[in-house]
Amino acid sequence: MTFPQKVGIREVGPRDGLQNESVIVPTRRKVEWMEKLLDAGIRYLEVSSFVSPKWIPALADAEDVFRMLPKRTGVTYAALVPNAKGLERALQADVDEVSLFVSASDTHNRRNVNRPVEQSLRELRPVAEEALAAGKSVRGYISMVFGCPYEGKISIGTVERTAHALLDMGVRELSLGDTIGIAHPRQVTRVIRQLKTTIPSGKMALHFHNTRGLALANTMAALEQNIQFFDGAAGGLGGCPYAQGAAGNIATEDLVYLLEQSGIQTGINVNQLVQAAGFIKPHIGGRLSSFQASLNEEGEDGA
Amino acid sequence: MTFPQKVGIREVGPRDGLQNESVIVPTRRKVEWMEKLLDAGIRYLEVSSFVSPKWIPALADAEDVFRMLPKRTGVTYAALVPNAKGLERALQADVDEVSLFVSASDTHNRRNVNRPVEQSLRELRPVAEEALAAGKSVRGYISMVFGCPYEGKISIGTVERTAHALLDMGVRELSLGDTIGIAHPRQVTRVIRQLKTTIPSGKMALHFHNTRGLALANTMAALEQNIQFFDGAAGGLGGCPYAQGAAGNIATEDLVYLLEQSGIQTGINVNQLVQAAGFIKPHIGGRLSSFQASLNEEGEDGA
Repeated sequence: MTFPQKVGIREVGPRDGLQNESVIVPTRRKVEWMEKLLDAGIRYLEVSSFVSPKWIPALADAEDVFRMLPKRTGVTYAALVPNAKGLERALQADVDEVSLFVSASDTHNRRNVNRPVEQSLRELRPVAEEALAAGKSVRGYISMVFGCPYEGKISIGTVERTAHALLDMGVRELSLGDTIGIAHPRQVTRVIRQLKTTIPSGKMALHFHNTRGLALANTMAALEQNIQFFDGAAGGLGGCPYAQGAAGNIATEDLVYLLEQSGIQTGINVNQLVQAAGFIKPHIGGRLSSFQASLNEEGEDGA
Repeated sequence: MTFPQKVGIREVGPRDGLQNESVIVPTRRKVEWMEKLLDAGIRYLEVSSFVSPKWIPALADAEDVFRMLPKRTGVTYAALVPNAKGLERALQADVDEVSLFVSASDTHNRRNVNRPVEQSLRELRPVAEEALAAGKSVRGYISMVFGCPYEGKISIGTVERTAHALLDMGVRELSLGDTIGIAHPRQVTRVIRQLKTTIPSGKMALHFHNTRGLALANTMAALEQNIQFFDGAAGGLGGCPYAQGAAGNIATEDLVYLLEQSGIQTGINVNQLVQAAGFIKPHIGGRLSSFQASLNEEGEDGA
């Protein structure tokens, strides 16, 4: 086993996390929270999404967030962009990187954005080109890489074709999503090993959910395949509110704790991440899906 | 990576789980629960503890449990035994295997049983001898193997000496406990690799807690070292009641799910374990620390 010496964390809590919480966090609180995440050492921040506010009211303040968030050197500020209209808003907000998304599952893609994968890819190509022409970099999410609630198994060949379609339009980095938290370590090894035959590991990030408690075991499997980039959501945001720890993104602080314990540098301070989680907690209904944050609370209660 | 083809599960929920819950479960309910665990395929059951009822009122009914639980062929019924008096009760109850326990940390051992490790080992030797003479097998728990809340780091040499002291008195299998859930995969690899230089891997079981969400990642690391036996507590019992998922034993159903997904046979049916968890849940305050059980509830609620 040889692990990478350094790993880059993509903090997606302010977008992927808040998008899946049932409450709307005041803009000013979001900005304060993101400042704390940056203070902790986060250097890649997916700030919001320029989808229609009708789809995702929780992120309707994307422009305001970008306006209020002071830019720091060395930080990449990203935003999700579903189409040309979203890109225009993102360019106006002066994002550094736009994230496009498509599903590895045709059925999920149709349910999510009402069109087949092929059509999504066709329509995203000019969006990527325009972003690149405007001097922005582009990231590509592929969801349901390890399984889909509608289609079940997803073939690695399908993932590979989708990945290459995104890379062909100039995508800098792929985020391979275990959207429903169904992946297991042996599968992670198998999928990445196959993808590496045509895609450099440095172009792949892994995006795990902890639905079955396997996100960190899967992270280990990915590290063994020399994956150097991982998505996380501070506080484990985006989980199911009544089943703590059950459904959300892997908490960035849990991920960073594992990496640092494994001797892998992240540049991020776990304690400060935990404090940031404590800051956002009351604004999202008082519950987090984070082992590190739970530990911290026990300490405070003297347990 | 070569994994074992089969893994043996040691179900410790009825003892280690219930011992750490703040409620007392009626004896009849315990027995019904254990019957369901056996129906699910559990073949090693730590039924209770013959410690003084003053110490652990939750397990004061050890004799009654053993009397009411019908014995099945092919199942090992074990019980924790702290001393000669406990052994006598265990022999009367006709247990198959007695579990002795000692800490790798002298400070923890003193706080737990009010004597240094050396004294514990000296006093346990005749207990082991008497158990063996009575035709019982003996298992040896070592707690705080990966770190201690009082002493911090524990040297592998200390663990190794304690392990050999137990093996020398005829212990069949060691249970190496990450009692406070502080272990991380790299450490698990290092500790087991060192212990394997003098102890066969077939004599070691690993006992992980999921305090930091790493129990399953640690399990993968142990499997890579050819460890073939793991402790689990059905339903994740023994956790902190207000921080779900934060402090208990790894839930047996989460452990079995990982193993079966990894192509490793356990002989245990996850769905039946989940049903057993659902049965015990109302009797322990309505909360479990189990990803598989949480998933099941979401399904029932239609979420």
